[in-house]
Amino acid sequence: MQAPSRWCRWAGLPCPSVREAAFMYSTAVAVFLVILVAALQGSAPPESPFLYHIPLDPEESLELSWNVSYPQEAIFFQLLVKQLKAGVLFGMSDRGELENADLVVLWTDGDTAYFADAWSDQKGQIHLDPQQDYQLLQVERTPEGLALLFKRPFGTCDPKDYLIEDGTVHLVYGILEEPFRSLEAINSSGLRTGLQRVQLLKPNITFPATPSDTYTMDIHAPDIQIPNQVTTYWCYIHELPEGFPRHHIVKCAPEMDNVPHFNGPCDSKMKPDRLNYCRHVLAAWALGAKAFYYPEEAGIAFGGPGSSRYVRLEVHYHNPLVIEGRRDSSGIRLYYTDKLRRFNAGIMELGLVYTPVMAIPPRETAFVLTGYCTDKCTQLALPPSGIHIFASQLHTHLTGRKVVTVLARDGREWEIVNQDNHYSPHFQEIRMLKKMVSVHRGDVLITSCTYNTEDRELATVGGFGILEEMCVNYVHYYPQTQLELCKSAVNAGFLQKYFHLINRFNNEEVCTCPQASVSQQFASVPWNSFNREVLKALYAFAPISMHCNKSSAVRFPGEWNLQPLPKVISTLEEPTPHCPTSQGRSPAGPTIISIGGGKG
Amino acid sequence: MQAPSRWCRWAGLPCPSVREAAFMYSTAVAVFLVILVAALQGSAPPESPFLYHIPLDPEESLELSWNVSYPQEAIFFQLLVKQLKAGVLFGMSDRGELENADLVVLWTDGDTAYFADAWSDQKGQIHLDPQQDYQLLQVERTPEGLALLFKRPFGTCDPKDYLIEDGTVHLVYGILEEPFRSLEAINSSGLRTGLQRVQLLKPNITFPATPSDTYTMDIHAPDIQIPNQVTTYWCYIHELPEGFPRHHIVKCAPEMDNVPHFNGPCDSKMKPDRLNYCRHVLAAWALGAKAFYYPEEAGIAFGGPGSSRYVRLEVHYHNPLVIEGRRDSSGIRLYYTDKLRRFNAGIMELGLVYTPVMAIPPRETAFVLTGYCTDKCTQLALPPSGIHIFASQLHTHLTGRKVVTVLARDGREWEIVNQDNHYSPHFQEIRMLKKMVSVHRGDVLITSCTYNTEDRELATVGGFGILEEMCVNYVHYYPQTQLELCKSAVNAGFLQKYFHLINRFNNEEVCTCPQASVSQQFASVPWNSFNREVLKALYAFAPISMHCNKSSAVRFPGEWNLQPLPKVISTLEEPTPHCPTSQGRSPAGPTIISIGGGKG
Repeated sequence: MQAPSRWCRWAGLPCPSVREAAFMYSTAVAVFLVILVAALQGSAPPESPFLYHIPLDPEESLELSWNVSYPQEAIFFQLLVKQLKAGVLFGMSDRGELENADLVVLWTDGDTAYFADAWSDQKGQIHLDPQQDYQLLQVERTPEGLALLFKRPFGTCDPKDYLIEDGTVHLVYGILEEPFRSLEAINSSGLRTGLQRVQLLKPNITFPATPSDTYTMDIHAPDIQIPNQVTTYWCYIHELPEGFPRHHIVKCAPEMDNVPHFNGPCDSKMKPDRLNYCRHVLAAWALGAKAFYYPEEAGIAFGGPGSSRYVRLEVHYHNPLVIEGRRDSSGIRLYYTDKLRRFNAGIMELGLVYTPVMAIPPRETAFVLTGYCTDKCTQLALPPSGIHIFASQLHTHLTGRKVVTVLARDGREWEIVNQDNHYSPHFQEIRMLKKMVSVHRGDVLITSCTYNTEDRELATVGGFGILEEMCVNYVHYYPQTQLELCKSAVNAGFLQKYFHLINRFNNEEVCTCPQASVSQQFASVPWNSFNREVLKALYAFAPISMHCNKSSAVRFPGEWNLQPLPKVISTLEEPTPHCPTSQGRSPAGPTIISIGGGKG
Repeated sequence: MQAPSRWCRWAGLPCPSVREAAFMYSTAVAVFLVILVAALQGSAPPESPFLYHIPLDPEESLELSWNVSYPQEAIFFQLLVKQLKAGVLFGMSDRGELENADLVVLWTDGDTAYFADAWSDQKGQIHLDPQQDYQLLQVERTPEGLALLFKRPFGTCDPKDYLIEDGTVHLVYGILEEPFRSLEAINSSGLRTGLQRVQLLKPNITFPATPSDTYTMDIHAPDIQIPNQVTTYWCYIHELPEGFPRHHIVKCAPEMDNVPHFNGPCDSKMKPDRLNYCRHVLAAWALGAKAFYYPEEAGIAFGGPGSSRYVRLEVHYHNPLVIEGRRDSSGIRLYYTDKLRRFNAGIMELGLVYTPVMAIPPRETAFVLTGYCTDKCTQLALPPSGIHIFASQLHTHLTGRKVVTVLARDGREWEIVNQDNHYSPHFQEIRMLKKMVSVHRGDVLITSCTYNTEDRELATVGGFGILEEMCVNYVHYYPQTQLELCKSAVNAGFLQKYFHLINRFNNEEVCTCPQASVSQQFASVPWNSFNREVLKALYAFAPISMHCNKSSAVRFPGEWNLQPLPKVISTLEEPTPHCPTSQGRSPAGPTIISIGGGKG
């Protein structure tokens, strides 16, 4: 994976990012786009009141549409079953498994069709939920298939139920090919099943009308033939006209109709190396997402002196059925204006420095590493008026399971910048924040990542490699500042004290010879519970080294080594879920439904 | 507090126990009894369908009766308000505070009386609960006062509500002296309030009928004058007839009518010292408790050769209003039989050895220490058929907040022996288990105590002193074995490694000079987060020293030092509370009630 690329959707592997690989910055501008191959087969759905749509399975026989009602704290789902056989499962689970899932089931025993709120146990066995929190609103036969309309509160206060939170939700589905005499007779392990990742709780932002003096620029992959492999990252370089003056990009939207310098797979040996150093991510789009709008008072600077004339379009094709010969010209439409807005928008990197001193022991199910952007750095580098974060993209490598950034002010946790309790490295979106977060001088930004290393034998150290780890939050904000990177890592000297200490305690030989690298030292630790806990204690106590950097890795002036860990004297309360009243529930037991005289 | 005494109810202080103070065992038999002075004023309530009764306030103007319905998972309460003024608060909270309490409120605005489910916030401000889980069943004027009958499920799945669990429940009350225009206008800080500790979920045991060939023996304090002080432990020594043969005690019940050797306050200088060495606790009774029955197949051996001829009655008087001149002859009635039962019952001590190597850092809100009874000890000391635990008494000193003993078999947590999530050192009862727990050879018994040392400046070490700590579960079981004590503590050598280690890490001088005592070493630790966490890691990792002892501190043969910590590969799941259906709830909002034409 030579060519770095950032949005690795539907893929088995994430990929090192431009920012990770690039210490040398070029001025190229990258635009990314993600397309599900199968999704191109279907025509656009008829005019529908649903804002969001996503196919669940590669054959696109199940299509989900939804709306979010924040006043009701509920989601309205429409599940379109195109070729109904004997029924369908749909639901949510922690990480997309069919076990311990919160489900709705539509099934038939051959005579009658039923709809019920159900759940699966740790063996995948399905059970009726005594509290029916999915409320069936309508069943309709449409020309496209059977449409089930139902409603689900975000939280149900039923401990068996999934809590719908901000961030990634792993949707699961299963297709029943034949009748079952009862709900309990269905075992999910025998079905054709799958998962789809999506952000269900889209922010409830009223998008500004696109101003009339807005130009558009379409950047398309030119009628390419999608390779017959599951995952392809296709790159295409687009050159702006010479003398193109500064504009502000105000919106980016997917473009699926027909429109080269380089044009080929991103990992092609033919692609010039310097294209890897594209500096700025402009926009990303993924299935189910709508256009990305900038706040009315800000835009991405684009064109003009000192700016790159090159835009890289990267399309990630996910072709799970390895269909051959499919052609595509997908692209992105940039909306830009010469009426420059008040503020330039910028991107800042929060979290952990890419260094092996931050490591996760093996066989951990939920190990947390934390990176800090300290009060000293924000005091020095932010403007007196502060900055406003409007979007965020969380990033880890393969073992990342949760990510959160919290803003702390005067030693108290103040608000959450972005949080994903079901984070997947295979689903990294730029997400608009529900509410802009203002960061003042002197505030602290604390980014914590939770990792699962159950399947690893050795410690996982921080670094650029796909088998190493990162903990990063790229925040999109305005007004742009010189601060490009505000990250931390444990002080290296204190880590050496740790190695000495556990060596003495265990009376075993941990390689602490000066010539051993930190990675080698970690690889030789005997991981008993004491050594694990003391590493946690070290990370929660030892002083840190700060990277408070401008562009090109230039630090702001000051002492950044051996800094004290920011103190937090009060933490945010867990939000208490609002328990729906009983009116919102269906009667206990399955609902008999009429789906007309036949199947599918 | 020279005289050890074990059941320190309603008192501001717990007290070192007989077992704690006594390494020398005498053969005296102690019987304890606890009486609330105020409680003696009222006459017995009229025949009522409620099994359990307790006065809430010292004036006894509020009296609570209750029944437990395990099939419904609900408690039926009757609150008798003897002199109703403008209303009353009643409820439950974590440790008896009026803040963050789950309440029912009866109040009047001057015209109308209302009843509602409410809760108080962290400032004691009262709010209406949108989910009304206390269901008012009946309001009745009786000759004694106003009787409110209401029902409350154990768990409500409302995060604002208290979860009624096994073990101690802190009941709270408040008396409204004047009308309030609304519920929200009531602030609990301005009221006459108080707390009462009780075990609400009494075990649902059908007590055997007392056999016809049962004798009774009444042991009474002889018409004493209750001292005008808040807390008095009154001791009285009763001598059994010479040649009294072996019997089995099968039941003990409180006796409140009129019936000396020593007779005086337990801490009197006149009391012979050797009376402190009473060995066996026979029974304890506290307010709200019923008689203590032994299982039909077992009894406490009593009388006969080798047994003590002395029974010590200890009555703990709580006289919060410091009433003068009150006289009392309370006592206990022992039911015993000469038809010896199949098994002798015994008492075994589980948990931590009384040693300073087990310590709690200062300023901790929930620090856990754990003591083990290992598989090696149960393998050696239990009979092939195992033993059956039928009752348990949890014990800590002042900083104890939770206690639990779990049985582990084949490396897996198997069942809970006894658990109290709201444990109070001021309320230590012998509790019958809901279900007898059988311990096999090779089983492990794990006793964990959670401590709060927020108000301490220095580490709290294990030991006998009232300002030191203990973590003990006295289990009552049969058949009696030689194993009297099965407890552990961290290996002392590993603790010394800890002191060396943190000394090096902190580059500070922790006193590790060989002549320093462990208590002195702990007192000199600089308690930063690293030193705290590493101590936890040590206790969770280091080998232990076992006390697997017969009577008189004689160890069973074998190597008991440097034993591995028992490994537990799977833990018990938290029970998921059963959420009540909406039928069980009252309509949202207060209920208007008619309490007849007047107050009180």
